[in-house]
Amino acid sequence: MQSNTTITSTNLTKTYASELLPHNPRNWDGTKKFLEEVVKILLEYINEENRRENKVLDFHHPAEMQNLIDLSIPDNPCTLQELLQDCREVLRLGVRTGHPRFFNQISCGLDLISMAGEWLTATSNTNMFTYEIAPVFTLMEKEVMKKMVELIGWQKGDAIFAPGGAISNLYAMNAARHACFPKCKLLGQSDLPTLCIFTSEDSHYSIKGAAAVMGIGADNCFSISTDFSGRMISEALEQRIIECKKCGMKPFFVCATAGTTVYGAWDPIPQIADICDRHELWLHVDAAWGGGLLLSPEYRYKLCGIERANSVTWNPHKLMGALLQCSACFIKQELKKFWGLLFQTNQMSADYLFQQDKPYDVNFDTGDKAMQCGRHNDIFKLWLMWRSKGMTGYRRQINRLMDLAAYFTARIRETEGYELVVDPPEFLNICFWYIPPSLRNMEKAERNARLEKIAPKIKAKMMERGTTMVGYQPDKRRPNFFRMIISNQAITKEDLDFLIEEIISIGNEI
Amino acid sequence: MQSNTTITSTNLTKTYASELLPHNPRNWDGTKKFLEEVVKILLEYINEENRRENKVLDFHHPAEMQNLIDLSIPDNPCTLQELLQDCREVLRLGVRTGHPRFFNQISCGLDLISMAGEWLTATSNTNMFTYEIAPVFTLMEKEVMKKMVELIGWQKGDAIFAPGGAISNLYAMNAARHACFPKCKLLGQSDLPTLCIFTSEDSHYSIKGAAAVMGIGADNCFSISTDFSGRMISEALEQRIIECKKCGMKPFFVCATAGTTVYGAWDPIPQIADICDRHELWLHVDAAWGGGLLLSPEYRYKLCGIERANSVTWNPHKLMGALLQCSACFIKQELKKFWGLLFQTNQMSADYLFQQDKPYDVNFDTGDKAMQCGRHNDIFKLWLMWRSKGMTGYRRQINRLMDLAAYFTARIRETEGYELVVDPPEFLNICFWYIPPSLRNMEKAERNARLEKIAPKIKAKMMERGTTMVGYQPDKRRPNFFRMIISNQAITKEDLDFLIEEIISIGNEI
Repeated sequence: MQSNTTITSTNLTKTYASELLPHNPRNWDGTKKFLEEVVKILLEYINEENRRENKVLDFHHPAEMQNLIDLSIPDNPCTLQELLQDCREVLRLGVRTGHPRFFNQISCGLDLISMAGEWLTATSNTNMFTYEIAPVFTLMEKEVMKKMVELIGWQKGDAIFAPGGAISNLYAMNAARHACFPKCKLLGQSDLPTLCIFTSEDSHYSIKGAAAVMGIGADNCFSISTDFSGRMISEALEQRIIECKKCGMKPFFVCATAGTTVYGAWDPIPQIADICDRHELWLHVDAAWGGGLLLSPEYRYKLCGIERANSVTWNPHKLMGALLQCSACFIKQELKKFWGLLFQTNQMSADYLFQQDKPYDVNFDTGDKAMQCGRHNDIFKLWLMWRSKGMTGYRRQINRLMDLAAYFTARIRETEGYELVVDPPEFLNICFWYIPPSLRNMEKAERNARLEKIAPKIKAKMMERGTTMVGYQPDKRRPNFFRMIISNQAITKEDLDFLIEEIISIGNEI
Repeated sequence: MQSNTTITSTNLTKTYASELLPHNPRNWDGTKKFLEEVVKILLEYINEENRRENKVLDFHHPAEMQNLIDLSIPDNPCTLQELLQDCREVLRLGVRTGHPRFFNQISCGLDLISMAGEWLTATSNTNMFTYEIAPVFTLMEKEVMKKMVELIGWQKGDAIFAPGGAISNLYAMNAARHACFPKCKLLGQSDLPTLCIFTSEDSHYSIKGAAAVMGIGADNCFSISTDFSGRMISEALEQRIIECKKCGMKPFFVCATAGTTVYGAWDPIPQIADICDRHELWLHVDAAWGGGLLLSPEYRYKLCGIERANSVTWNPHKLMGALLQCSACFIKQELKKFWGLLFQTNQMSADYLFQQDKPYDVNFDTGDKAMQCGRHNDIFKLWLMWRSKGMTGYRRQINRLMDLAAYFTARIRETEGYELVVDPPEFLNICFWYIPPSLRNMEKAERNARLEKIAPKIKAKMMERGTTMVGYQPDKRRPNFFRMIISNQAITKEDLDFLIEEIISIGNEI
């Protein structure tokens, strides 16, 4: 019937989704035409996003934004034309996180191969829990995990891809508790002594969050002091462990951070591992952000000792540039007692899903080692991107980002009005203050009090201008400062120069 | 330089991702050409997937599959041509979950508008934790949540989109524990009495899983008996609650399931709510699967009483047909003591991310009420799809699926050799046995012993044929049976007839 007609721009205004596949199997041409129109919009967006002269965002306050776009769920269907218009509007009013001057988050930039991978993932729309319905993706996960386990430096490891680093950390802590107190899975914490865990005060808040969810209690997650540059002080860790034991508490888990969120600091893993050995504690390394350096022979020394960890969190959606979400929790399996630990921890015997009498080797089903039931396919976008770069390409990409960080650090050091918060920065986080001329000759206490308000003011103006975005935050020891992140592959030296000039220019206005 | 050249199929073999945007900003034409080639592959796949004469899958055992595709991570980059070939191969060897004869999971089918939404989501690649970097998507979430809260029948509710129903259930149980024992967040479970929770033996295993993760203990999650059709027996629930109290345990949480995984059964929410009222327990309704019926005025009576729940899990990636993952946990906020409960439960004061001195109303930041830090954008694909159907379109779609289920049930009843496991089925799950001729006149005990092996054998042959896919499972009371799920929008009556004939045809072979 309709199979030889195409939708023209006129009749898009009269056509509805219910007239496309799969509802009308004969209308392949119309379906194709609509999807091609969507792709046109997306391609145009990518092209625009990569042009430096375009804005990173067109800022509007929430109340104003609500008037700019109709977000309501209508009673009657929208036409295909209206849906295309929705797509255009949503992109126009959003933040261009792939813009070369978007430095706001640890996950910046848009790797187009990873994006293409995610398009395919959407189209194949399957679930990772069984080989039955995800045969290739299940094997792909195994292959990529094997590579990542090698890079961590383990002989043997298991892993699960999880929705973000916080959930990966939860997986690790739960596996650790199960390894130490296997009865807890069935009986709960009631009969256990008060468990406690340790992490640096600069570590990610999800460690404390996992302790809260798991019934350990956020206050039983002890924040260990860090030095000036944000590294955990290992002596303080050991002292606290001893104190906790004296109080009758039961320490079982230590988290060392490889690349902290704010300063990009590296906890001293070898010293922490020694302490864990002495006290028989589970060592987890949260390398959500720093893990990517394992791909660089030149910089992997920063994660020295990671092979001694019992578990590792590593988010390819951060330094490796995969699209959000892509995170994994790794469990070392060199000791026999830890074989199959993820399975033992999370398996709940759902025999309607994970039958043992299937026609293939059910060891390939991963569902029983996951905390989730349905699990999104996060592997294809990573695999395709990794294939596009190879090991050599990743090495180059990551070393280049480290070089750009060194360049930016040097520019901050040499430019009047700028001051590094931690010097030298150890990673791709460069934290700095911009001190407007009026504050430069002030006495320090007064200057710092005023400085607290400078970064938020500059950030507000920056968002209004829409030319670039960089985050700021306070630290209990320090007034608000900017945290520059160099993880966007699109960045060039000129973009870094631009940021420095832009902040000066805004600073002169306030 | 290259801006006016296009990549021909010849030079794709020599071009690498490093020559595209953003690495080479001048090569827009090449970038566009590559992405268009990817889209061509995806469109061709969609077209093929929708043709009934094509297979649902081309089955290979894991060992064999590993030889059919190179999944390794290479040292050197692959060319763009090789990446395109990777995409083709992965799709060719995968399972076509959008095929009109794929009935294997609760989440079946491929809604093309939701898919287009996911393509855009990938391209916009942002993170849901702050309004700052997801202004439109954050407001969109609020709008859709408001609609869903209305459909649940609450005056006021809060919600969070989470990566799957298991995590949504975990959110609910954690919020419930916080509401009942607010000190637990900081101090853990050590000083609390032994907590216990209740759910039906036919409920989803993630309830038990959440109890295990949370340190409550899976054995303190009591499985309440169900009747013949899989509904919780409310008298058994109350009896168990009373017993637990007598033993000094502290009941706090009851899960009623609206649409169970295997039988599609509906727990009697009003009776369960009365029991929760009498014993002052938190009522959670796991409507991950059944929630979609709230969109049908004709069938929403099956969820009668859901408005009395304190929390609800509802997965739009199931009945509503959104792409995986799309799930939400709702918390009723009618009583003042539950205002902001998600925030109070999960907030960990990460001031580097959720600063209070931002230039906009930070009440729009959602990060502090999430357990995750980074949170995938699961809203756009749902919103766009919902706009494409409107309320009327959804009503029609869901009623049509219910009609198809009635048709299939009638066909099973009337076709020789078939037997319903639960008659009548209450939802879109139709569980049935196929009894091969040789078993039909057997004595029941022997027949059932043999029947146990029939479904796995038929399934194995079915996967070899690749013509259709439907799941099977055992029940401790019953031998292996097939569980038909009618949620794929592409299904027609002819597809249902096909399944019935195909099983007979395979059954005659074994």
